[in-house]
Amino acid sequence: MPAHLVDGKRVAKQVEEEVAAAIIRLGFQPVLVVVRVGNDPASEIYVRNKARKAEELGLRGDERIFPETLSEPDLLAEIDRLNRDQTVDGILVQLPLPKHIDPHRVIDAIDPAKDVDGFHPQNVGRLHLGRPALTPCTPAGVIRLLDACDLQIEGKHAVVIGRSDIVGKPVAALLLQRNATVTICHSRTRDLAAVARKADIVVAAIGKPFFVTAEMVKGGAAVIDVGINRIDASQASLVAHDEIKSALLAKNGHALVGDVDFVRVREVAAWITPVPGGVGPMTIAMLMSNTVKAAEWRRR
Amino acid sequence: MPAHLVDGKRVAKQVEEEVAAAIIRLGFQPVLVVVRVGNDPASEIYVRNKARKAEELGLRGDERIFPETLSEPDLLAEIDRLNRDQTVDGILVQLPLPKHIDPHRVIDAIDPAKDVDGFHPQNVGRLHLGRPALTPCTPAGVIRLLDACDLQIEGKHAVVIGRSDIVGKPVAALLLQRNATVTICHSRTRDLAAVARKADIVVAAIGKPFFVTAEMVKGGAAVIDVGINRIDASQASLVAHDEIKSALLAKNGHALVGDVDFVRVREVAAWITPVPGGVGPMTIAMLMSNTVKAAEWRRR
Repeated sequence: MPAHLVDGKRVAKQVEEEVAAAIIRLGFQPVLVVVRVGNDPASEIYVRNKARKAEELGLRGDERIFPETLSEPDLLAEIDRLNRDQTVDGILVQLPLPKHIDPHRVIDAIDPAKDVDGFHPQNVGRLHLGRPALTPCTPAGVIRLLDACDLQIEGKHAVVIGRSDIVGKPVAALLLQRNATVTICHSRTRDLAAVARKADIVVAAIGKPFFVTAEMVKGGAAVIDVGINRIDASQASLVAHDEIKSALLAKNGHALVGDVDFVRVREVAAWITPVPGGVGPMTIAMLMSNTVKAAEWRRR
Repeated sequence: MPAHLVDGKRVAKQVEEEVAAAIIRLGFQPVLVVVRVGNDPASEIYVRNKARKAEELGLRGDERIFPETLSEPDLLAEIDRLNRDQTVDGILVQLPLPKHIDPHRVIDAIDPAKDVDGFHPQNVGRLHLGRPALTPCTPAGVIRLLDACDLQIEGKHAVVIGRSDIVGKPVAALLLQRNATVTICHSRTRDLAAVARKADIVVAAIGKPFFVTAEMVKGGAAVIDVGINRIDASQASLVAHDEIKSALLAKNGHALVGDVDFVRVREVAAWITPVPGGVGPMTIAMLMSNTVKAAEWRRR
């Protein structure tokens, strides 16, 4: 029997409904400011989507757009203004930033109480200490998806593949908080397949298409696929999914796929997230949730 | 062939020599202030040992002793003074604190640049992000002991047993930084023995005497025992070590043992740390090293 599909759109919708309800309870409109520097087309779309979703749920979503040439001191001054602006609840600086700006210096400048991306060292530290924190959005979304499976995280062996600061490490911290036994694998891991095969829960976040094969997954495992990879026709031979294959083979075709060989792993796992439609929709939903949390906490 | 003994006293001595040499290079005497509230006899000994070791290596070690009845605001005011005192390089507040004082509030009040215990959320976050940080002393000592073994950490599977904020989690972060594949186990882990048996490196930090048995250790593994447990005659039957057994069976006898069944695990492992004389001596040495680091960084 193929795995249950974990429907990220449905779970994200639930989170969004909770957010909308929380805003009504709050009695005021939380404000999220998204700062974008330069005009990277992907960033432009992300930022617009965030602002739009905010408005849809009853938050105010402001975009602050600056030219590619903005200096680091000017960006830091803008963040300082947003920190001191009592009407602003959440500040998100869209990454990547232009090369002449040090992202660490920028993230460190954000008031941790408004750091809705959860990237400030103070929030990272609090997360690992199990103290109240604004938690990175994608990892928080992964946990919500696992909660939507009919499985208890506690006591399970979770294997996280990838150790990025924005996904792998915080996901591991959250799984540990939920009392999973947690293993973090990465490019230097020996016999990764054997390690992954021990897992009741696999979180794939390496950014390599089709990296997680059926041979790496234990029967009955839950597989959460965080990867979003754009592949083209040259990779069509790797693809077992007919729809994706036809898309690729179409003229100038490309397709979005995860880190998991979805079609084959689906035959082994008990739960699996699709790409797109799995983790993707959760990230923006959790960002909205973080903004409401920040608004509540700051007023306590 | 029994395991090589990893001699914590010898490695601590090396660290201390590096610290003494670094102080000569610095050209001034770094100042460590250890704050103690109340008169817990164990804390009294720890604090005195820290101050003494500081002086021995060429640091200045100041003790600030306050009565058990010191209020939280008064302690916070003292920390504020030490933060602003430009002559102070390292501040350590000896834990545990009396019950009427919130340790989180106290640790959060220490300037992260002077937080030589590495417990401030800012340092914890920077550690997990792989950025320069003051790192908790015992975990840093564990890594130094592993470096003293003839084994490469990179690519090895390390299993950390215990997930405390002061040992388990930071040790896992440091092992990950050194490119180990890292698993964290704890009280909710199922079949911990099977998980531990996969490990090339075992770090035991659960605070239970004789918890790690020979059956839990793979042949040739390195076993680092962070536990320090005081046991009495009622536990003598668990002890395979003749010296410890006689100590226990003496009138009013007690003994210090680690989390590892040393005598039996020694027959299986390739490297093992004794208790006492393993991780113990490293902690103070790494504290001195952190103080010198803090002194250097603050003056950059």
